[in-house]
Amino acid sequence: MQVASRMEAITPFYVMELLARAKQLEAQGRDIIHMEIGEPDFTTPQPIIDAGVAYIKAGHVKYTPAAGLPELRQKIADYYWQRYRVTVPIQRIFITPGATGAFLLALGVSLNSGDEVLLSDPCYPCNENFIHLFDAKVKHVPVYADTAYQLSADLLQQHWQALTRAILIASPSNPTGTIIQAAELEKCIHFVNTRQGLLYSDEIYHGLEYEPGVTSALAFSDQVFVINSFSKYFGMTGWRVGWLIVPEAYSPATEKLAQNIFISTCSQSQYAALAAFDEQTLAELEKRRQDFSLKRDFLYAHLLRLGFNIPVKPAGAFYIYADCSQFSNDSQQFAQQLLETEGLAVTPGKDFGYNEHEKYLRFAYTGSMENISAGMQRLERFISSKQTS
Amino acid sequence: MQVASRMEAITPFYVMELLARAKQLEAQGRDIIHMEIGEPDFTTPQPIIDAGVAYIKAGHVKYTPAAGLPELRQKIADYYWQRYRVTVPIQRIFITPGATGAFLLALGVSLNSGDEVLLSDPCYPCNENFIHLFDAKVKHVPVYADTAYQLSADLLQQHWQALTRAILIASPSNPTGTIIQAAELEKCIHFVNTRQGLLYSDEIYHGLEYEPGVTSALAFSDQVFVINSFSKYFGMTGWRVGWLIVPEAYSPATEKLAQNIFISTCSQSQYAALAAFDEQTLAELEKRRQDFSLKRDFLYAHLLRLGFNIPVKPAGAFYIYADCSQFSNDSQQFAQQLLETEGLAVTPGKDFGYNEHEKYLRFAYTGSMENISAGMQRLERFISSKQTS
Ligand SMILES: Cc1ncc(COP(=O)(O)O)c(C=O)c1O
Ligand SMILES: Cc1ncc(COP(=O)(O)O)c(C=O)c1O
Repeated sequence: MQVASRMEAITPFYVMELLARAKQLEAQGRDIIHMEIGEPDFTTPQPIIDAGVAYIKAGHVKYTPAAGLPELRQKIADYYWQRYRVTVPIQRIFITPGATGAFLLALGVSLNSGDEVLLSDPCYPCNENFIHLFDAKVKHVPVYADTAYQLSADLLQQHWQALTRAILIASPSNPTGTIIQAAELEKCIHFVNTRQGLLYSDEIYHGLEYEPGVTSALAFSDQVFVINSFSKYFGMTGWRVGWLIVPEAYSPATEKLAQNIFISTCSQSQYAALAAFDEQTLAELEKRRQDFSLKRDFLYAHLLRLGFNIPVKPAGAFYIYADCSQFSNDSQQFAQQLLETEGLAVTPGKDFGYNEHEKYLRFAYTGSMENISAGMQRLERFISSKQTS
Repeated sequence: MQVASRMEAITPFYVMELLARAKQLEAQGRDIIHMEIGEPDFTTPQPIIDAGVAYIKAGHVKYTPAAGLPELRQKIADYYWQRYRVTVPIQRIFITPGATGAFLLALGVSLNSGDEVLLSDPCYPCNENFIHLFDAKVKHVPVYADTAYQLSADLLQQHWQALTRAILIASPSNPTGTIIQAAELEKCIHFVNTRQGLLYSDEIYHGLEYEPGVTSALAFSDQVFVINSFSKYFGMTGWRVGWLIVPEAYSPATEKLAQNIFISTCSQSQYAALAAFDEQTLAELEKRRQDFSLKRDFLYAHLLRLGFNIPVKPAGAFYIYADCSQFSNDSQQFAQQLLETEGLAVTPGKDFGYNEHEKYLRFAYTGSMENISAGMQRLERFISSKQTS
């Protein structure tokens, strides 16, 4: 019995091994500080919890329309107007099981097998796996500090070839936390349009931004796919609810595909998400954003002080992608040792691509300030013991 | 901008148009009786609701492991022992967003593009679309009363060809409610094994059975894929939680694919489902099963009395697939007229395949007895007005 051939190209999350080891150590009574996981330790905002509970208590937890609750699609449309001053007809908005479901839907409806997609390297690990799922091809474009670890119109020009069909941009980015400037994003969209290509814009870290400059791709074109989620900014990871915005021409096919591959997105999560745009929720999220901003500054300053190289200060998300090559030329081994000796878990670059990944570690500032601060003490001790040994 | 070519092969649910029209009529104040939808109007059992609410209230609605909560996988393993006397190691059990997610995972991990899958015709409409999603091929095998509208070893013998790689069996079946006998299922499994093929067994309607004879494919082999869900028997449609059991050799690839295409299944639904096997829940479900059984008998008797042909009495699920050719040679038109003139919504055969579909209507007995009874009065009136006109 043979596993499907596409599975050869699909990589596991390497961090899972590290996480498993961390859990093992915890089970043995070790105190582990987690800076490896892309999940804030905030709880879901209270109005969202209350809405979810009220819905469930009524007992009628039934399938919703495949495209999602009309009220929720409308609230998302309103949000685009308030936040970005763009008008999005609700026919173009689909509620999905997280950004993950949005990716499945977007690629399933638009990519043919054999099509090539340009991805920045490093980027979020699932991206290339979604592409392989549909037997399409990935072209990794190494990105560096000069473009803030983002694709650029120049890079597209260099790497776009006959079979290239699409590009994916994620801003703020996982793992680098960096953003693409509005003017550059506009140029990229223009470039892709002239090639009759597709642009997928992963905007899941919108809202978690600590510098100005974050723009939705929708500000420049209605012919793009926008992927977003309630997971990160809205604090709803485990609820599995996000959304996809498609160009008008893709709406009927997207609806058909959603019927088949989801039936619908989890109902209580959709009803709960109706409270995500309440004033009280947004006020709470703004407080959290400020809190994240302080954590970013704190972690950034500490990592620099310890001698890590971070050429571009991250402007969003909750990650710092730090060059540790002055301590080790094998970031995976570094991460393993750091876990074993100090009980500090961070993610090695390997999970995010091929471009000098052995130089990088991703630190997530998703825990409390005390936690991060304790993590930095452990890191400092680890580095000095390495240097004296 | 072009839609992906796989989308040409993917069909929408035709019943959605009918449903949309039904909703339109309702909005105009018409009273519509719904017998078109595969969703019971029971609420989710109270212990499940309570467990879900308690989990959400704590606020920490976080990602779970990709394969699902270990406790839930263990409870499912225990259930297989209690119910079927088969031992399933939890490494083979994956929690998924419904049977829908289980299908995505099972086919994604095992089917190559170009592989052919044998499906009974009629069958559940999504099946062929899942197959097309992965650029694999469908071979429809027309099934009739002689095999209770199920595949059989003889049919496999007739239809299996060089490119055939897998078969899908669903028992009890949607739309026919019929079951495959244990001995025949065993023969099919044996046949597939000798061809080194794959068998997907959709067991979502297990538990909703009103005659003896329903067996899990796992009773005969551990080299099969079993798809199941908390949606139907456990009354949890909108929660989007189900499971997949894979042959041992597929476990690592399945885990990897689940990480990528789900991250995890909705957390509160998993925590809620922990209460699905409680004594109190199971007692409630047994009452509902008996209730469904009465509804089946009632609907079956009425349809026969009105002159519909139902060659095999359905033994499970909550559907009757009735031959209406004595009233119409176009079941879609029949369904449309029935909706317009009498406000009774049923699903035309077109949604379930190509095999004489224009002769068939699917009636779902998911509503209350009063509802079904009122539906039958409307149907009778419709038929007699047709016959006099
Ligand atoms: C860049 C990026 N995109 C998408 C996702 C998927 O998130 P979800 O499916 O929870 O919305 C993640 C999660 O870590 C991410 O970092
Ligand atoms: C035969 C069959 N399989 C699978 C499903 C999918 O159900 P779910 O994804 O809610 O578990 C359905 C739903 O109607 C069905 O009828």
